[in-house]
Amino acid sequence: LASNYIGNIFRVTTWGESHGKAIGAVIDGCPAGLALCEDDINKEMQLRKAASFPFTTPRKEPDVVEILSGVYEGMTTGAPISLIIYNSDVRSESYSPIQQILRPGHANYCYQTKYASFDHRGGGRASGRETACRVAAAAVAKKLLAHHGIILSSFILELGGIRCKEQAPLQDFQSSVGQLPCPDPAAQLLMKERLQKAQEEGDSLGAIIECRGYNIPKGLGDPTYHKLGAELSHALMSIPACKGIEIGDGFSLARMQGSLANDLYCLDENGDVTCSSNRAGGILAGISNGMPLVVRVAIKPTSSVKKPQASITIDKKETVLQLPEDSRHDPCIGIRAVAVVEAMVAIVVCDALLAQRLSRL
Amino acid sequence: LASNYIGNIFRVTTWGESHGKAIGAVIDGCPAGLALCEDDINKEMQLRKAASFPFTTPRKEPDVVEILSGVYEGMTTGAPISLIIYNSDVRSESYSPIQQILRPGHANYCYQTKYASFDHRGGGRASGRETACRVAAAAVAKKLLAHHGIILSSFILELGGIRCKEQAPLQDFQSSVGQLPCPDPAAQLLMKERLQKAQEEGDSLGAIIECRGYNIPKGLGDPTYHKLGAELSHALMSIPACKGIEIGDGFSLARMQGSLANDLYCLDENGDVTCSSNRAGGILAGISNGMPLVVRVAIKPTSSVKKPQASITIDKKETVLQLPEDSRHDPCIGIRAVAVVEAMVAIVVCDALLAQRLSRL
Amino acid sequence: LASNYIGNIFRVTTWGESHGKAIGAVIDGCPAGLALCEDDINKEMQLRKAASFPFTTPRKEPDVVEILSGVYEGMTTGAPISLIIYNSDVRSESYSPIQQILRPGHANYCYQTKYASFDHRGGGRASGRETACRVAAAAVAKKLLAHHGIILSSFILELGGIRCKEQAPLQDFQSSVGQLPCPDPAAQLLMKERLQKAQEEGDSLGAIIECRGYNIPKGLGDPTYHKLGAELSHALMSIPACKGIEIGDGFSLARMQGSLANDLYCLDENGDVTCSSNRAGGILAGISNGMPLVVRVAIKPTSSVKKPQASITIDKKETVLQLPEDSRHDPCIGIRAVAVVEAMVAIVVCDALLAQRLSRL
Amino acid sequence: LASNYIGNIFRVTTWGESHGKAIGAVIDGCPAGLALCEDDINKEMQLRKAASFPFTTPRKEPDVVEILSGVYEGMTTGAPISLIIYNSDVRSESYSPIQQILRPGHANYCYQTKYASFDHRGGGRASGRETACRVAAAAVAKKLLAHHGIILSSFILELGGIRCKEQAPLQDFQSSVGQLPCPDPAAQLLMKERLQKAQEEGDSLGAIIECRGYNIPKGLGDPTYHKLGAELSHALMSIPACKGIEIGDGFSLARMQGSLANDLYCLDENGDVTCSSNRAGGILAGISNGMPLVVRVAIKPTSSVKKPQASITIDKKETVLQLPEDSRHDPCIGIRAVAVVEAMVAIVVCDALLAQRLSRL
Repeated sequence: LASNYIGNIFRVTTWGESHGKAIGAVIDGCPAGLALCEDDINKEMQLRKAASFPFTTPRKEPDVVEILSGVYEGMTTGAPISLIIYNSDVRSESYSPIQQILRPGHANYCYQTKYASFDHRGGGRASGRETACRVAAAAVAKKLLAHHGIILSSFILELGGIRCKEQAPLQDFQSSVGQLPCPDPAAQLLMKERLQKAQEEGDSLGAIIECRGYNIPKGLGDPTYHKLGAELSHALMSIPACKGIEIGDGFSLARMQGSLANDLYCLDENGDVTCSSNRAGGILAGISNGMPLVVRVAIKPTSSVKKPQASITIDKKETVLQLPEDSRHDPCIGIRAVAVVEAMVAIVVCDALLAQRLSRL
Repeated sequence: LASNYIGNIFRVTTWGESHGKAIGAVIDGCPAGLALCEDDINKEMQLRKAASFPFTTPRKEPDVVEILSGVYEGMTTGAPISLIIYNSDVRSESYSPIQQILRPGHANYCYQTKYASFDHRGGGRASGRETACRVAAAAVAKKLLAHHGIILSSFILELGGIRCKEQAPLQDFQSSVGQLPCPDPAAQLLMKERLQKAQEEGDSLGAIIECRGYNIPKGLGDPTYHKLGAELSHALMSIPACKGIEIGDGFSLARMQGSLANDLYCLDENGDVTCSSNRAGGILAGISNGMPLVVRVAIKPTSSVKKPQASITIDKKETVLQLPEDSRHDPCIGIRAVAVVEAMVAIVVCDALLAQRLSRL
Repeated sequence: LASNYIGNIFRVTTWGESHGKAIGAVIDGCPAGLALCEDDINKEMQLRKAASFPFTTPRKEPDVVEILSGVYEGMTTGAPISLIIYNSDVRSESYSPIQQILRPGHANYCYQTKYASFDHRGGGRASGRETACRVAAAAVAKKLLAHHGIILSSFILELGGIRCKEQAPLQDFQSSVGQLPCPDPAAQLLMKERLQKAQEEGDSLGAIIECRGYNIPKGLGDPTYHKLGAELSHALMSIPACKGIEIGDGFSLARMQGSLANDLYCLDENGDVTCSSNRAGGILAGISNGMPLVVRVAIKPTSSVKKPQASITIDKKETVLQLPEDSRHDPCIGIRAVAVVEAMVAIVVCDALLAQRLSRL
Repeated sequence: LASNYIGNIFRVTTWGESHGKAIGAVIDGCPAGLALCEDDINKEMQLRKAASFPFTTPRKEPDVVEILSGVYEGMTTGAPISLIIYNSDVRSESYSPIQQILRPGHANYCYQTKYASFDHRGGGRASGRETACRVAAAAVAKKLLAHHGIILSSFILELGGIRCKEQAPLQDFQSSVGQLPCPDPAAQLLMKERLQKAQEEGDSLGAIIECRGYNIPKGLGDPTYHKLGAELSHALMSIPACKGIEIGDGFSLARMQGSLANDLYCLDENGDVTCSSNRAGGILAGISNGMPLVVRVAIKPTSSVKKPQASITIDKKETVLQLPEDSRHDPCIGIRAVAVVEAMVAIVVCDALLAQRLSRL
C-alpha cells in the first residue's frame, strides 16, 4: 500500500535507503509562485547535520540537496518538486558480521517479519538517514510558512532526564554550531556531562523535544478526524524512535481540574480575542486558536549501544550482540531529531494552511 | 476538504450533529463475508452509554444503531455499511442564553473563526456525541479483529491524579455496569470519591486511558509515514479532549538509558521469537513485533464546568460564563472515553491488518 | 478497499442497495456558507425520476431526499452533509426464480466471482438505483456551481441510432415532463417510435448523452494525472452501462489533420482570449480553456430484455433466461442516464473549482 | 493539490520537466519479493523510443532508466522504487522566439492561466517527455502482471483514418524496430504513405490505439466509483492528446439492441464459465469477467504543426505562429502513444490486482 508520504494537499513522498545510491523527496502540491532555490534548502539541512552538534556520529555526508524539478526562473511552478541527496560516505561492510542477529530496539526483525527481507546496509529504509529528506522537503514548507509570517522554533526540553527551565517566547532561538539546540545554558552543561558519561559507558540517552509555532492563523485544522493535533501526532509519531506526544500541557492536563485547565478568553492590547494562558498549546477542538502552537515529543534512547546485549539469531540460537568497535551511532538521536520534529510540524502546518482555503464558500 | 473519515482501506466516515435528526457512519472497505448483525454493534454501544457508568450525564438516548446497508443474509457483502443512530433526547433551548459567550476550552469560538458559523445546538459536530458513531463503526472492526483472534482491552489508568496499580494481562477485563471501567478496585474507590467532590464543586477532572491489544500479528504497520504508532496517534488524538499519547513506556523511555530501554529478544515456550520485556508497547520501527500493543491517552477535564468562568462575548465584551443549572456534563469525560479509545485502536488495527495483505508478492 | 466515493476535495460517498431500507450519500468537503435546503435537492431528483419521462419503468418511488446533517439555519456549516432516500416500492420476490441463472450483461456473475455473494434483491448495489444518490449529491455541487455562474446542460444526442441535429448553445435547455430530454423535436419523434418498437419486441436500446458546461472558469484541472478530462472520464465511466467517452470532438479528432483539429486563438468582443472553434470541448492539456465544456457518453442498451436469452446456471447447466412478465426495466436506460451524466460532471467540476484555490501562492 | 500520481495501492508519482536536469517516477506500494533489475525497465523503454519507429522525432535521448531505491539483491523490498532518467539532448533555445504566442492545441496558454507561469523549455511538465516516466514505472507493473500470467498487447488500430482489419488474439504481437506498431501489414503500408504526405505538408495526424489484456483474473475492479473501466478511463484520459475512450465495442454498443449487445454466457472446453462474444471488452458492471480486456483510445493529431497558424500573442495582438524550421515534432504522436497506453493499462490492472486481495474476509 502506498504509504511513504505525508500530507493531503502539500504532499511529501520520500524514497531511498541509507546505503543506496541516493535518497530523495518529491513534493506534490506546492502552489506556484513561491521563490525557491537550493540554498533555501541547504541552509535548513545544516540544522540536522552531524557536524553541527557535539555528540553526533562522524558520518561525513556533505548532504547537499539538489532540486531536480518544479522550479523555473527561481519560482515554484506548481509542478512536483523533486529533491535528491546522493549518498557518499557508505561503509556497509562493517555491519555484515551481525546481520544474523535480531538487534534489540532495532528494525531488522520487524522488517524481516513483514517483508521476508531486510536491507542490512545501514538499516536501509529504516535508517535515520531517511529523515534528511523530511528536513529537505520541510524547507520548502517553511518558505511557504515564512511567506505567511509563521515562525517555528524547536529545542531540546529534556535530555537524559535533565530538563530546561520554562522558556519565554522563542521566536528568535537559534542553536549555534557546536552547541546543543537548547536555550537553557545551565541545563545544556549538565546534558553534555550526561552525554559524555553515556558515551563512555557505551550506552545511549533519550530526550524530549519541544516545538513551538508563532503567528499561526486561527482556524487551521479540520474537526473530527483531521484535527490539527491529530495530523501533528501522525507526523510526529512517524519520526523514528518517537514514543510519546503532548499538545500543550499534555499529560499534566489529565491531572488538573477543568476550572484550571481551561484557557480563559480575554482581549489583547489590540482588542483582539486571545487567551490568558496557553495550556491547550494553541489547539482547541482540533482547530488552531491563535495562541502559540506547542508540541512535545518523547524520543527513546538510540537502540544501537556498544554495551553487549543478549539476543537471538535469525535461526533462533541464543547469542550476544556486540556492535563492532567502529560502528557509528549517536549517543542521543534526540539531538538531531530537533530538526526532524520541526520539519514534521512545518509540513503539517503548511498542509493545514492550504486546506484552510477550502473551508468557506 | 474531505476530512471526516479515518482509515485507508477500512474507511469510516462519520456525519451528524449532536442535536440534528440523526448521526451515523459509513464504513467503506469492509471485506465481504463477515458475519454481522445489529446486536453485534448495539452490544458495543453499551460500553459508551451514559447509563452504564456512575458520574455520567443523564442524557437518556436509547442509542440504538440500525444497519441500513452492506449486509445481506447476515453477512457483509463488500458494499458500504451505513449505520444510523437517531437523536431523540434533544433539549437545545437550554443553551441559548449563552450562545454569545466564547466558552473556555470549548469549540464554539474556533468553529466560528473557521467557518463563520457554529451549530450551537449541543455543540453540533464538535459534541462528544459524534463519538457514538466511532464506537458503532468500531464494533464492525472488532468483529473482524475477533475473527483473527485479536482482543482489545481498555481501562482507566488514572483519574483525577489517582493511578491504578500496574496491571497484569487484561484480555478478560470487562467493566461492570455501575462501576468505573478500572481493574483496580482500591483505586476505583478513590476515583469515585474524587469525582463526587469535583461534581459538588461544579468542577471536572481529567483521566489517562490505557488500551492494550493481544494476539496482534507481527508485521502490521508500514514504515516511514504510516507506522502503526503514527496511525494510532492520528486516530487517538482525533478524540475530543485528547492532549497526549504514549506508545509503550512513552515519555518514561526518554529518561531511560538505551541498554535498559531496549526489549531483549528471546524465545518463548514454543520456541518462537518474543521479547523479555515490552517497553516498546508492541511496536518497533513502526511495525508490530508480536508483543501486546500498549497505548495511553491523556484526556483533559471536561471543559464545561458549572463554576463561573471569566470570558468575553462574541462582540468582545467582558462577561462571566455561568452554565445553566440544568446543563448536563460529565464531571470526567475520560470515563466514557474508554470506549472511544478502544474504538479508535480497533479501526486502526483493522486497517493495518488488511494493509498487511499487500506487503508481499 | 474504500472505493465507494468520488472527488478529492468535495467528496461524495454513496451507500445502499436497491431493495434495502434506504440509500444515501455523504458529502464530505462542502465549504461552509452555501445556502441549501431539501427543495434544492428534490427539484433535481425530478430529472432522474421514472415518472418524468415516457418509456421508463413504472417503479413508483417518491424518492424524497432528506438532509440529515451539515446544514444549520439554511446554510452549509462545513460539516458532512448526509442525504437519505428511503426505499419504499420494493418487490423482491418477483426475481427469485431466476437467481440461479447468470444474466447476460448483468452484474450477478461478476459480483459472485468477486465477493462470493450477490444481493439479488433488485441488483443490490449494482442497481441503477444507486445513481439516485449521485443526482442528490450533485444537486449540492450544482448549487455551488451556480453560485459561481456555472451552468450545465445535458441531453440525449443519439438514441437507438437516431441522432439529433447539431445544437446551438443550450444553457437554457430544459426537458419537459412527458418528453424525452432531447432538444431536437424531429429526432425525438423518431426516437419515440424506435423505443415503442423495441419495447414491443421485448428488446432494449442504447444512447449517447451529451453534457455541456457554460461559464467554466479557465484553469480548472491539474496537469498529468488529474487532468479535468481524466477526472471526468473516471466519473462518467463509473455510470452503470457506460462504455465510451468523448471530450469535444473525441474520436473524430483522431481522423482530422492537426491544422484543422487545433482550435485557433482569437479575441472575443470584450478583447478577451477565446477560440474560434471548440473541437477540444473546453479542455486543453487537461485544463479548462474557457470554452464550453463538451463531453459525450455511450450508454449500452439495458441488459435486461424480455426476449429469451441462452445462458447457464450458477451450477453450470445450460438454460434459457426468460425474465418474468412483470419485471420492470427501462427499454433505454440512457433516458434516465441524462441526469446521472450531468450529476457526475457537476461533482467533478465542483471538485476542480475548489482545487483551483490551491494552485497559486 | 497533490495530483501527479496515479494508483491507489500501487501508486506512481512522476516528476520532471522536458528540459530540466532529469525526470523520474516514484513507485510507492510495490509488494516485496518481485525480481527487478534495470534491464527489465530499459527493455520496455525501447517501445516508446523515437529511434524505434519511423516518423518519430529525432530527439536522441539515450533514455536510460536508473533504479535509485527499493531494490535489494535483485528483489523489491516493499520500499518506494525511485526511477530516474537524466535529460541530455536539450535544445531549449530553438523555441524562444515563439514564447509570446498562444500556441493552438498546446498547453502554454492554459498553464499560464492556471499558474501565472509556464516553463517554455520544451513544454516543461506538459511535454510528452513526461510519459517516459509512465513507461518506466509501468515496466515494474508489467513484471508483477507477468508473475500472474497477465499479458498486454497494444497496437495502432487506426492512423490518419486508415483502419486495421479486425485482429485475432494478439498475445504474441510485437512490433519490430523500423515498423509501425500495427499488426496489419497492408494497413501499415497505407499509414506510412499517409504519414509521408502529412510530413511533407507540415501537418499532423491522429490515431486510435487499442490495448488488449489476456489472462486477466475474474473479479478485478470495485463497483460504483472505482470500476475497472472507470480507473482505466481516468488513466487513459490522462495521456496527453487523448480525447476519447472505448471499453469493448464502446460507442457501437449505443447503436445495438440489447439482445445483440449482451455477451451470452456459455462453458469453455474446460467447463469453465466464459462468454460467446466479447462486446463488453472484458468488463461487466465495472468488474473483469475473465474475457480479454479491450480498450481503445483516440489520440488527436500533434498540435505542433509546421503549417502557419493564426493566433494571438500573450499581450493580445494578432499574429501568425510559424514554428522554426528545426523544431522537432512527431507527425503523429499516436505512434509513440502505443507504449504509453499500454503503460497506463498496466498500472491500473496492477493496482486492481492488488486491491482484489482486500475484497473478501
